[in-house]
Amino acid sequence: MKENYIPYKTYLEENEIPKQWYNVRADMKNKPAPLLNPGTGQPLTAEEMSGIFCEELVKQELDNDTAYFDIPEEIQEYYKTFRPSPLIRAYNLEKALDTPAKIYFKFEGNNTSGSHKLNSASAQAYYAKKQGLKGVTTETGAGQWGTALSMACAYFGLDCKVYMVKVSYEQKPFRREVMRTYGADVTPSPSNTTNIGRKILEEFPGTTGSLGCAISEAVEVAVSNPGYRYVLGSVLNQVLLHQSVIGLEAQAALKKLGVKPDIIIGCAGGGSNLGGLISPFMGEKLRGEADYRFIAVEPASCPSFTRGKFAYDFCDTGKICPLAKMYTLGSQFIPSANHAGGLRFHGMSTILSQLYHDGYMEAVAVEQTSVFQAAEQFARIEGILPAPESSHAIRAAIDEALKCKETGEEKTILFGLTGTGYFDLVAYQQYNDGTMTDYIPSDEDLAKGFAALPEVPGQD
Amino acid sequence: MKENYIPYKTYLEENEIPKQWYNVRADMKNKPAPLLNPGTGQPLTAEEMSGIFCEELVKQELDNDTAYFDIPEEIQEYYKTFRPSPLIRAYNLEKALDTPAKIYFKFEGNNTSGSHKLNSASAQAYYAKKQGLKGVTTETGAGQWGTALSMACAYFGLDCKVYMVKVSYEQKPFRREVMRTYGADVTPSPSNTTNIGRKILEEFPGTTGSLGCAISEAVEVAVSNPGYRYVLGSVLNQVLLHQSVIGLEAQAALKKLGVKPDIIIGCAGGGSNLGGLISPFMGEKLRGEADYRFIAVEPASCPSFTRGKFAYDFCDTGKICPLAKMYTLGSQFIPSANHAGGLRFHGMSTILSQLYHDGYMEAVAVEQTSVFQAAEQFARIEGILPAPESSHAIRAAIDEALKCKETGEEKTILFGLTGTGYFDLVAYQQYNDGTMTDYIPSDEDLAKGFAALPEVPGQD
Repeated sequence: MKENYIPYKTYLEENEIPKQWYNVRADMKNKPAPLLNPGTGQPLTAEEMSGIFCEELVKQELDNDTAYFDIPEEIQEYYKTFRPSPLIRAYNLEKALDTPAKIYFKFEGNNTSGSHKLNSASAQAYYAKKQGLKGVTTETGAGQWGTALSMACAYFGLDCKVYMVKVSYEQKPFRREVMRTYGADVTPSPSNTTNIGRKILEEFPGTTGSLGCAISEAVEVAVSNPGYRYVLGSVLNQVLLHQSVIGLEAQAALKKLGVKPDIIIGCAGGGSNLGGLISPFMGEKLRGEADYRFIAVEPASCPSFTRGKFAYDFCDTGKICPLAKMYTLGSQFIPSANHAGGLRFHGMSTILSQLYHDGYMEAVAVEQTSVFQAAEQFARIEGILPAPESSHAIRAAIDEALKCKETGEEKTILFGLTGTGYFDLVAYQQYNDGTMTDYIPSDEDLAKGFAALPEVPGQD
Repeated sequence: MKENYIPYKTYLEENEIPKQWYNVRADMKNKPAPLLNPGTGQPLTAEEMSGIFCEELVKQELDNDTAYFDIPEEIQEYYKTFRPSPLIRAYNLEKALDTPAKIYFKFEGNNTSGSHKLNSASAQAYYAKKQGLKGVTTETGAGQWGTALSMACAYFGLDCKVYMVKVSYEQKPFRREVMRTYGADVTPSPSNTTNIGRKILEEFPGTTGSLGCAISEAVEVAVSNPGYRYVLGSVLNQVLLHQSVIGLEAQAALKKLGVKPDIIIGCAGGGSNLGGLISPFMGEKLRGEADYRFIAVEPASCPSFTRGKFAYDFCDTGKICPLAKMYTLGSQFIPSANHAGGLRFHGMSTILSQLYHDGYMEAVAVEQTSVFQAAEQFARIEGILPAPESSHAIRAAIDEALKCKETGEEKTILFGLTGTGYFDLVAYQQYNDGTMTDYIPSDEDLAKGFAALPEVPGQD
């Protein structure tokens, strides 16, 4: 073995899996703006939140000061069954691109949920169980989050009710069956099981559902059934906290290898993966200990960072959830029908929004055919069939590596490969058949979304 | 950390991935019987084989004496992208079963092909490339082997033509799209692209195809196109040789942990996984260095070991392939339509057949609803959604662990978890819906298969 040889895959030892999550808010000078009660326009209190979320999670949601939270032993034990995830050197991609750049990726897809979502699902299920709850409710679109939550609930012995957008329920029966195998109760949304579902079905009998509607149903079931709480897989501060395990592991592995990344890249929908991956590195930057370029990659068809407004907005299309200050396209914005995969949320984590607003991060928007071109190249060379979401990060990593080829710079690139595309083959088929299209919303389209932003005192 | 603590997952270091394959034939007193030319009834010569298979693979196929084959550096390099695979301690399963048994499994499913098949696909694609060939042809049923071969061909830069049983092509479009994403040319079989395909379509216009027919088409294309050879993912001696990497890694990891298994369990269809997993352990047993119980687990609906005959038979239903001496249900045997997943080959590796015949191995047949019950329990507790094939081994491992609970024996069980069930959700849905059924062929059914065994001089 050569000196300073870096293996293809670096795994931490089991006892090196992080025992604490890192809360990047503690190191932010400008804290993320608080969630507001849509009725009063006042910051949501812990009491108001605890009807919807578990108590410990409410504490985590509201805590902008504690830098490290101990990961409960039971969660550590569960993490051992699917973590550590590997840090992979993309030697074959580097060779194919003929770039002097060194490319690493942190791969979170080697578990049955197929993505990083299990990191937070574990925590949320555990705290619900610890609080003595019977179960949790949630919504799922493509099914990644619902699958992760089903797995965590099966492990911790908790009832799991998933409201799955009807069109996905019907078009993605396999995701549904994975959840059912893990014992989850999966209901196509809108459904007859909730008031809001019945109302929507009455108004729009033929509707195929939406994420906004599924959220509303899941929240209704949580608040109207004793012993249930609602859980969410992205956007929230608590989710970024749990997902920091990705960045902490990546940081530890890179340290072992003696490697310092120059550029850190992640795809961005609601921000769970990007926030988790970059948090500890961002902490170093915020504390002035190191500098990194951070790049958020979003779909050109849902460009909240690059073309959205930094404003208070509803987190859901149904306007029943709290207001969050974030980069948003407006709560009524829905990505065009040709958009494949996730990263379709109209807003963005308030933490990441604040960091972007304060200039700590860059963002790029990429079109989906170029994303799938990157996905195919990556799959053939590196072996892993990536999720469409993750492939946004691949696209940007390849683009940065190609810039290095031009300039001759030997930059070290780290990107997050959040998951696998085994349940996204319909989109791959479109790409293989040459029928996949791109879509960039016009300024007029976006203006409609912005016009629907709520009026909040003090907001521009 | 406790003394003698065994982590959940044990990974070898990259430089500990085996650099040689182990050929168990070298340690067998009774060698596996040679393949026979169906026309002459004489052992197939290297020359006869080389029209169909690559030269190096022919050498490996015929070599009963060389114990170790160097793994070419290029294959070692490719192995680094998806190996080592983890050896996992099933702590949660042990706890759920309340058994004193210690359960380990070697998990081969963490790669995009979703199974161990990639170990041999790598080797076969590499040798084809090295020989200067343009491409390879093969057949695939459920698609596991076809996917693995597509990946290996994409990596080594080789054309890949896959004949996929038409019913699978139509019912498993996602497997097909993975292969297409890796650049493979996937044709539903029977097709108009071959003489035999056209003939079958003319005779049976509405046929949905069979593995036997797909083999015939793939072989025809290989022998009639210069620069092409045919490759096969199981049954052959060369395949068991390549798959020995599973057992060698498992052996090395167990040695590191200071653990000696008492029972080694693998599912058995054509024998690629079982043979690969047990080979090095069987070598120890054959050389009198250690003793192990080996258990082959097969579907009750396709019980070649437990109810088949040890006889020369055709390897394909079309009777164009060589004759192999093996445990067989007859080349015309087709598992009943309710059989889910793989393990549907009528015969068995000649190596494993000889070892079983000589009393070195046991075999059990299990029914599929009990297999899926084990799969569901395993998925919920251990997190991994297993392939139906792999779940046969889980069933037997659980049964052995429950026996230990009765007797109080602290046996150490190792089983092979060959792959994941992400493309087998139709079967899981049947199980979840309670519509899955069992089938055990009657003695009369089997008698029909035995009646069709070919007449070979010297055969009982």
